[in-house]
Amino acid sequence: MNFNYAKRMDNIKASEIRELLKLTQMPEVISFAGGMPAPELFPVEAFKKASKEVLNENGEIALQYGPTEGYEPLKKKIVERMKKVYVDATSDQILITSGSQQGLDFVAKVFIDPGDLIICESPTYLGAINAFKAYEPEFVEIETDDDGMVMEDLEEALRTNNNVRFIYVIPDFQNPSGKTWSIERRKKLIELANKYNIIIVEDNPYGELLFEGEIRPAIKHYDTEGRVIFLGTFSKILCPGIRLGWAVAEEEVLSKLIMVKQGADLQSSTVSQMQIDRFLEIYDIEEHIEKIKALYKNRRDLMLKTMEEEFPEEVQYTYPKGGLFTWVILPEHISARDLAAKALEKNVAFVPGGSFFPNEARENTFRMNYSNMDDDRIVEGVKRLGEVIKKIL
Amino acid sequence: MNFNYAKRMDNIKASEIRELLKLTQMPEVISFAGGMPAPELFPVEAFKKASKEVLNENGEIALQYGPTEGYEPLKKKIVERMKKVYVDATSDQILITSGSQQGLDFVAKVFIDPGDLIICESPTYLGAINAFKAYEPEFVEIETDDDGMVMEDLEEALRTNNNVRFIYVIPDFQNPSGKTWSIERRKKLIELANKYNIIIVEDNPYGELLFEGEIRPAIKHYDTEGRVIFLGTFSKILCPGIRLGWAVAEEEVLSKLIMVKQGADLQSSTVSQMQIDRFLEIYDIEEHIEKIKALYKNRRDLMLKTMEEEFPEEVQYTYPKGGLFTWVILPEHISARDLAAKALEKNVAFVPGGSFFPNEARENTFRMNYSNMDDDRIVEGVKRLGEVIKKIL
Repeated sequence: MNFNYAKRMDNIKASEIRELLKLTQMPEVISFAGGMPAPELFPVEAFKKASKEVLNENGEIALQYGPTEGYEPLKKKIVERMKKVYVDATSDQILITSGSQQGLDFVAKVFIDPGDLIICESPTYLGAINAFKAYEPEFVEIETDDDGMVMEDLEEALRTNNNVRFIYVIPDFQNPSGKTWSIERRKKLIELANKYNIIIVEDNPYGELLFEGEIRPAIKHYDTEGRVIFLGTFSKILCPGIRLGWAVAEEEVLSKLIMVKQGADLQSSTVSQMQIDRFLEIYDIEEHIEKIKALYKNRRDLMLKTMEEEFPEEVQYTYPKGGLFTWVILPEHISARDLAAKALEKNVAFVPGGSFFPNEARENTFRMNYSNMDDDRIVEGVKRLGEVIKKIL
Repeated sequence: MNFNYAKRMDNIKASEIRELLKLTQMPEVISFAGGMPAPELFPVEAFKKASKEVLNENGEIALQYGPTEGYEPLKKKIVERMKKVYVDATSDQILITSGSQQGLDFVAKVFIDPGDLIICESPTYLGAINAFKAYEPEFVEIETDDDGMVMEDLEEALRTNNNVRFIYVIPDFQNPSGKTWSIERRKKLIELANKYNIIIVEDNPYGELLFEGEIRPAIKHYDTEGRVIFLGTFSKILCPGIRLGWAVAEEEVLSKLIMVKQGADLQSSTVSQMQIDRFLEIYDIEEHIEKIKALYKNRRDLMLKTMEEEFPEEVQYTYPKGGLFTWVILPEHISARDLAAKALEKNVAFVPGGSFFPNEARENTFRMNYSNMDDDRIVEGVKRLGEVIKKIL
């Protein structure tokens, strides 16, 4: 039969990263494509112990339905975690989500009518673009420099558009650019959001994975009017396979997010929430995060050093101070999609940058992930990539 | 601040069941409200064993990202399960979802534009109504008799409306009515759907939990044109806390559902999928389903017998041949909401029927669940309820 789809489906396309994931699961491929954590650091033993204890002590509760907003003891632990980014929240301001990706879907569902404007960094997380597009918004992309979004451009956009519904930002080790906002910019963003009465969606999956300096306060830290919705996740500090994240928002907004979650999937897994809650009790997650940081820092250093040696001078890239990604800019006339096809022939994968721009794709860009490959593969992969780039230039 | 929400939020209200869940978690309350399985039957030990084995053997894979469509070995087992309802599918036609509730959200997201029509049984599952309403449809409710939807009314609705996007049905032990469709009606539904070129969404959480007779072929069994989307779940045959279900659809439709899942939550939990996959290998789920059926049959018998003894003659109710619910109809002038408030004073809970009607609430109805309370509480709860009804009549 011929199927007629909703209009929103014209906007939705398959995620380039998710599609690449299948290709890059072949063992011979050196993949800098996904945003996958280093699996060798997954605390499998502690997780196993936590699982066992939960099922031993509370099996019948763990396997039963639970409240939509989430398992209360875990919410309380998230309240504590939020203090690391200088945010004071109560457990009534927290909704457990199935990864922070679900938080992105929900904020758009709650706030976006077709034609509404979302302001975002340029480039921005392609999973957010895809989640938002289902609600048929328009996007305004704002340039970033080394301190974050350029505030003059942001104010211009706010001044000249009256249908902006929220500003979406990833202020720490941004995906895909690797950039981090200065404290000044964070304050200025709140000032402008207050002035123009706009909601901010702060997506923070990587904030704790910093290699240098101190954790900066979340933008929500500076929020005095309850206009920031903060999205967090266990994916990068623990493991992504369990699919648990959280949203922090004012009670009124949170009640809307909860209603949306009731319709979307009733609740996140009771047993997974109880497992993570127990895990956090029996395991030193701070020490674990230190291990992750040490490993990723080494891999970042190795990747950037190898890129310096192997990439032609015309190729630029960012120097991330944390997180999982560096962002590469090729000379204008080079298409990273062509490059990706050629690199894949050499069994090297990355994500072409075009998908990270909701409006005008800059095809001479690509994203490199350094968290998932070991040292040998980083060196070998970047070398091969350098050769392919030299040929195409 | 004052928040401006998307227009769709005017349609979405808190789920009455989910809100009741909080109240009914108090131990003194005898609750016939939720659709909660009997937790004493949860196969906790086998689940623990499966968890341990998965983490022992494949911990790094289990805690990592996986493909959006789901864990292939589990999809293959679902292909086998589908044969129990006489559906031949391939694993390429299956998407793992976070409960069948997520399937409901996704089908509406893929097919519904604001103002489109959804045809459903009257009454119908309130979680489906809530999921669908986020996409701003209109509803046409079709009466049911003891054999399912009344086909003359359905054809009239299809003939007189040109913007019907799908027909949503729960043909086996319907929630909330407990009714089951005859084979003739199933065939006739397909015939009408073919004639008017309409999609069918078949929601089947309870089909295997039949107390009498043989499992009837799913409506999808009769589908020759790929127009039925079938939604299944592990919630009622295993446990709901793990939040895993599935959708079966033609490849083209499935590819749309997959794209929507990418934006919604990337994928369902890798570790949970692998746990259930392993669980199904080490445990006899068929024997387990027999245990569930035996227990629920006894509870249904006890509830209906006690209702016969304790409820006044003017009160009618259905005689479900499987599943979790019976549907009670009070005399026209009695409000089940008033009754619920008075019953709760006696620590007895049920779900008033109004929320199960998307258009015109029939407030003289309510839903009773018999799966979750033990024998003593069923008898005591129905007795108290009978007293309250007698007073209010």
